[in-house]
Amino acid sequence: MKDSLIVVSGGMDSVTMLYEFREEIALAVTFDYGANHGPKEIPLARMHCERLGIEHIVIGMDFMTKYFESSLLSGGEAIPEGNYDEENMKSTVVPFRNGIMLAIACGLAESRGLKRLMIANHAGDHAIYPDCREGFVKAMSLATQEGTYDHICIYAPYTNLTKGEIARHGKALGLDYSETWSCYKGGEVHCGKCGTCVERREALAEAGIEDKTVYSL
Amino acid sequence: MKDSLIVVSGGMDSVTMLYEFREEIALAVTFDYGANHGPKEIPLARMHCERLGIEHIVIGMDFMTKYFESSLLSGGEAIPEGNYDEENMKSTVVPFRNGIMLAIACGLAESRGLKRLMIANHAGDHAIYPDCREGFVKAMSLATQEGTYDHICIYAPYTNLTKGEIARHGKALGLDYSETWSCYKGGEVHCGKCGTCVERREALAEAGIEDKTVYSL
Repeated sequence: MKDSLIVVSGGMDSVTMLYEFREEIALAVTFDYGANHGPKEIPLARMHCERLGIEHIVIGMDFMTKYFESSLLSGGEAIPEGNYDEENMKSTVVPFRNGIMLAIACGLAESRGLKRLMIANHAGDHAIYPDCREGFVKAMSLATQEGTYDHICIYAPYTNLTKGEIARHGKALGLDYSETWSCYKGGEVHCGKCGTCVERREALAEAGIEDKTVYSL
Repeated sequence: MKDSLIVVSGGMDSVTMLYEFREEIALAVTFDYGANHGPKEIPLARMHCERLGIEHIVIGMDFMTKYFESSLLSGGEAIPEGNYDEENMKSTVVPFRNGIMLAIACGLAESRGLKRLMIANHAGDHAIYPDCREGFVKAMSLATQEGTYDHICIYAPYTNLTKGEIARHGKALGLDYSETWSCYKGGEVHCGKCGTCVERREALAEAGIEDKTVYSL
């Protein structure tokens, strides 16, 4: 049944989820919160939705650029390089980003009569981003159920998968990951050095996928 | 300690809370979601914050007008008249509005190092608005605690008070309720007939406050 709304960024994880659950998805929403890599990621989200015949809307969140603190909103130069670990990546946290995206998605789903919200947080995010952890997703799902007439719930089936395991799902689906974007710097091509680029390379290698991404290094 | 952020609309309830807890409030946020009565309510929210020396910001949510369904966003003509009961007022529900406002407030609080979110939902809202009930507030507070580094929580001390009881708080504080706005139609003066006007009149009468509001009827 097509009763789900998915939050899709244009990155590896949400694009994999979009294809894996395409029969259940009625609406895909991308949030433009002024991230450095938005101009690279958002057109890819749109392209995949068009290819699958899924309605896609982009919701702007200008207030984040204006009032929120994060290196992810401050230009590519501010993004740390090296591993995707806590110390290194903490500056990239956008406070309560998943909470905000899920709350807006919930209101939109209720306006459209949809029953379920999907989001592609995964195990690799847990150390750095509190709003990617299972405890958050469970509490937020209870909040959306309690706070809506239709008892809308959240479904986050990748919560305990690694990015390498998600890439294996994508491999089985025949996805071409060069049609996704990861780099937090948002340059012409992937930088190859920032935490998200390092994590992308490792995940593709772990899944035994030939990496066709163009990296600057 | 000034460690709280309050969601303030400019209506009776949130203005009462603003004055009652002014020593604890570091930042007040008003959301402009295109409601019919926004142009009347928002300047009052700003005026009270200025009077108390509390920083006030207005966050626009254009996406609600564009994508959400509610009579509250559709012009004064669409607002039902009569009592503030479920059947009558259900069309005024803005889906998951409190969830969206609290989620954005949470990200903003974490950006500013604030620890607590305040919101003035009350018992009279429970029948109509699922996201004003205690179950929602508790779940959402768990979500904000789980989803932030600082374990930001929600404080909603009016959840089980009636609007009349809130007006008694305001009376004790010496508030002039003619400096607040209720009417969902958003005309030049309060219409006196819509559910929120009826509820306002009853609350002021219940608290024994002389009603200086100008009503058209």
